[in-house]
Amino acid sequence: MQSNQLTAQGQLRHFLTIEGLKKPMLTEIMDRAEQFSGITQRQVKKVPLLRGKTIVNLFFENSTRTRSTFELAAKRLSADVMNFNISTSATSKGESLLDTLHNLEAMHTDMFVVRHDQSGAAEFIAQHVAPHVSVINAGDGCHAHPTQAMLDMFTIRRHKTEFHNLRVAIVGDILHSRVARSQIQALSILGVSEIRVIGPQTLLPRDCQTLGVHVYHDMDQGLKDVDVVIMLRLQLERMKGALIPSAREYYRCYGLSPEKLSLAKDDAIVMHPGPINRGVEIASAVADGPQSVILEQVTHGIAVRMAVMSMALGAQQQETDA
Amino acid sequence: MQSNQLTAQGQLRHFLTIEGLKKPMLTEIMDRAEQFSGITQRQVKKVPLLRGKTIVNLFFENSTRTRSTFELAAKRLSADVMNFNISTSATSKGESLLDTLHNLEAMHTDMFVVRHDQSGAAEFIAQHVAPHVSVINAGDGCHAHPTQAMLDMFTIRRHKTEFHNLRVAIVGDILHSRVARSQIQALSILGVSEIRVIGPQTLLPRDCQTLGVHVYHDMDQGLKDVDVVIMLRLQLERMKGALIPSAREYYRCYGLSPEKLSLAKDDAIVMHPGPINRGVEIASAVADGPQSVILEQVTHGIAVRMAVMSMALGAQQQETDA
Amino acid sequence: MQSNQLTAQGQLRHFLTIEGLKKPMLTEIMDRAEQFSGITQRQVKKVPLLRGKTIVNLFFENSTRTRSTFELAAKRLSADVMNFNISTSATSKGESLLDTLHNLEAMHTDMFVVRHDQSGAAEFIAQHVAPHVSVINAGDGCHAHPTQAMLDMFTIRRHKTEFHNLRVAIVGDILHSRVARSQIQALSILGVSEIRVIGPQTLLPRDCQTLGVHVYHDMDQGLKDVDVVIMLRLQLERMKGALIPSAREYYRCYGLSPEKLSLAKDDAIVMHPGPINRGVEIASAVADGPQSVILEQVTHGIAVRMAVMSMALGAQQQETDA
Repeated sequence: MQSNQLTAQGQLRHFLTIEGLKKPMLTEIMDRAEQFSGITQRQVKKVPLLRGKTIVNLFFENSTRTRSTFELAAKRLSADVMNFNISTSATSKGESLLDTLHNLEAMHTDMFVVRHDQSGAAEFIAQHVAPHVSVINAGDGCHAHPTQAMLDMFTIRRHKTEFHNLRVAIVGDILHSRVARSQIQALSILGVSEIRVIGPQTLLPRDCQTLGVHVYHDMDQGLKDVDVVIMLRLQLERMKGALIPSAREYYRCYGLSPEKLSLAKDDAIVMHPGPINRGVEIASAVADGPQSVILEQVTHGIAVRMAVMSMALGAQQQETDA
Repeated sequence: MQSNQLTAQGQLRHFLTIEGLKKPMLTEIMDRAEQFSGITQRQVKKVPLLRGKTIVNLFFENSTRTRSTFELAAKRLSADVMNFNISTSATSKGESLLDTLHNLEAMHTDMFVVRHDQSGAAEFIAQHVAPHVSVINAGDGCHAHPTQAMLDMFTIRRHKTEFHNLRVAIVGDILHSRVARSQIQALSILGVSEIRVIGPQTLLPRDCQTLGVHVYHDMDQGLKDVDVVIMLRLQLERMKGALIPSAREYYRCYGLSPEKLSLAKDDAIVMHPGPINRGVEIASAVADGPQSVILEQVTHGIAVRMAVMSMALGAQQQETDA
Repeated sequence: MQSNQLTAQGQLRHFLTIEGLKKPMLTEIMDRAEQFSGITQRQVKKVPLLRGKTIVNLFFENSTRTRSTFELAAKRLSADVMNFNISTSATSKGESLLDTLHNLEAMHTDMFVVRHDQSGAAEFIAQHVAPHVSVINAGDGCHAHPTQAMLDMFTIRRHKTEFHNLRVAIVGDILHSRVARSQIQALSILGVSEIRVIGPQTLLPRDCQTLGVHVYHDMDQGLKDVDVVIMLRLQLERMKGALIPSAREYYRCYGLSPEKLSLAKDDAIVMHPGPINRGVEIASAVADGPQSVILEQVTHGIAVRMAVMSMALGAQQQETDA
């Protein structure tokens, strides 16, 4: 599937997936986020960059946390935000998804932030929107979560400066994780020297080798000498499906305890997209410990989303002007 | 019922119904909407006209689409918006409707946008609000939906310039439609030469003749040589009541197919208040075809609502100042 | 429990309870509210005092009315508001309350307005928030509702100017009322000459004497010559618990009828935190009568909340700057 997220001039029009993007684009997103990062800590945390723009949070899947960070990012850019919970909307009156979208476009809205439980939903919507609308993927099924991946890259760059000499381990349910998929793509593009995925056979995709990663079923081996440990959230509903035996057993094998973390480099950082399951995939002592940058990720999430939103609307503005 | 929507000077204080308004008022609303229409397409879609005003969306009946257009209209006028879903509010604690209203007034809010499933609800509320509050009817029962009618008139004027020489057909469930009732009143006031209503006996009001309209049960005859075709949404729940036989049968008799549309004038426009039921009251080929102005209606809805909101608050401001 | 609501310099950092505050602080809150009171009645009801600040409404207990007044107060100070209904948020994914709080902090939010059905919840949260976040208690269990108490004090001052010569009666379910608890503390600090509580034995706390109030079970005696009558809302669920016999019986004994009110001073004012149960704790003739200041309380609620919010964020700003 050829992604349509770039303009003819190679600028960001939508932000749907990390796949297919080039290193300079990822660097530009991080550089922009760096600028916005300062704003978020000022007394007046607003810039008028998107004043008069209307951003629609189109959430087909409930997520207070992700919706909040996009809402805050939009408001700090001075945009107007409209929250649209699709399950309670006109689609329940039998209107088709595309009719709902075209109605929102007709209201001269400028951006759809889309979360959907079906892989490919954001791409589908982007293929059908009017030229004046940008689409940001806020997570689609097991497919992609590109703003999460970029805030993770931003957090790594803040701590490690360079990517080329890093060894990064991603631990847990890689198979069902849109976060992991986008992270692996971003880490590859940014040229880290080694990406490891660690997890039980049942939670790793079969095509792991083709992703350019090294597979470990043993966590002790996998964590050895890594610079970055990315823990994934364990979807507890997986346990019903018998993919993992029990939370306790999972923690014993793949939970990040202080002992396990000590196998990584001394200055390794620990990341997690949240919300965390304490005692399931991560020990409290680690989540709250000195190597954890989990809350920094949340902070950087605002700046990265401000960056992507302003780039997508800026690129578009130039296209319309031309 | 003497409507109390005008001030002593004949300016708009509330906007409750089309009934009883004079042609210059409808023209003023459309002229104002024309001005706002430009704003909606600018880069910065905001004007500071209602800065510091507080507009309350009082929705007793759920409607994401209508609420969104009012919310956007208010925000583009720089007003603050408070969404108030009445079923979840204090009324569930046993507080009376009027006590809830008086509490909202005491918070120095400036406008209530009211949707209710009971005919007359907006009028009732307008009769009881404090002098500083304006009420906009966003649809009450089977009674009236005046902003919808005005956005329809605005759309017709955009395409046909004049009203006096037009033949307009309204098709479907006239009996239960607050939209149709308000449209017929507006078309009459604006002086169109002929208004036709088309539908089965069971879905037409008995007093049709007194409305000054021509009744057709046969759609082919009714559509002949009309300039404007307004399709109404079929409330599918009517079918349970046995008022119509089946969706398929309904479409055969009263659905707007390309063949039926060809009986109207070549430059006839097709309208629908949305959300549309494709294949029930309208064929996709028509809804998406060159004569359809359905999405334009949505766009104009914002401008018309901005016009009505600013007129009602402006008129009031002058009254208070005097 | 030592309350941590003041800074080392004695300024307001959080606003959790009236208990322990000194008279000058309560006076400062009322003086500030007096300034904001003018703003609320201007054409443009906004001041840019909290522009760029993010205020989170953290409501664990549903309350449209209280949430709305805080939301309006925040918007009129030009802050951005994020409504966070905790029951629908990440805590349902198994995240702990503190993790949710730390995530919100990491988004660089500035204030949490907390309502919770557990006494002590706001205090608990205040003990755990980051230095840059202020907490406002919007009602916690049966414990405290300090902004309600302050808007009541503000309303009394508006009508009676001085506190030291006042006789104030609070009538109803004192036992379960966070409002009454905070009111009694505020009235004591402001030095009213006599506080009376009136109610059946079953609805009065056992330690009434230690609160410095006079207890009356007979309403006629209790109302004699008072300057202010504060009616409490009867929680109808108390009747299930057999604490009161019936609504009719309750009204006969403790409902404020015109006859009972005539026992108070001629210029006595009648207050109620709302929403009122007409005919249960108060007669409509009294609620809507000339001595009622119930809707004024609602109006003053906005100004008092603006005062407290701006003080808490101002105090904090100075601390951070120092």
